[in-house]
Amino acid sequence: MTERPKLDRADLLPLFGTGWKMEAQADALEKTFLFKDFKQAFAFMTRVAEEAEALNHHPEWFNVYRTVKVRLTTHDAGGLTTLDAELARRMDKAAGY
Amino acid sequence: MTERPKLDRADLLPLFGTGWKMEAQADALEKTFLFKDFKQAFAFMTRVAEEAEALNHHPEWFNVYRTVKVRLTTHDAGGLTTLDAELARRMDKAAGY
Repeated sequence: MTERPKLDRADLLPLFGTGWKMEAQADALEKTFLFKDFKQAFAFMTRVAEEAEALNHHPEWFNVYRTVKVRLTTHDAGGLTTLDAELARRMDKAAGY
Repeated sequence: MTERPKLDRADLLPLFGTGWKMEAQADALEKTFLFKDFKQAFAFMTRVAEEAEALNHHPEWFNVYRTVKVRLTTHDAGGLTTLDAELARRMDKAAGY
């Protein structure tokens, strides 16, 4: 396990307000984003890909047509870190929240 | 069910040669593409997104870091059509096959 900034769980509260949920089985965040069409969904993914590269922290995500389902966790820390909360916030911003 | 061009199953044979497989439980094609890193994986997805829009036929796909797992089927035809074979070929091309 790499040393990672510890996540203050209170930092997650604003994310719960925008639709992020904790997974039942693992220390991970997930959210399903719904867009107008594929073009809008993929434009979102393109913006997020840039943020992910900037943070050097990447999502697990599934896309079919206008739906993007995201799962965030920090694999080499064995659970959530501040990187996940930061990427979640940037995703909300990229989706126009 | 919409009328869709029927798929000649013989058209699938070259795709099996590049790693596409039939799903066990459904009339669908799937393949896992592996790239050098996230940047390369997402560049592939961006090329494929353009092809998908051009064909008006979209993949189901999952990405985590340098892995892109793809599933192709034609939902409104209840199974594989020529559109899936065409998108599979364009994906192989986009991945450099």
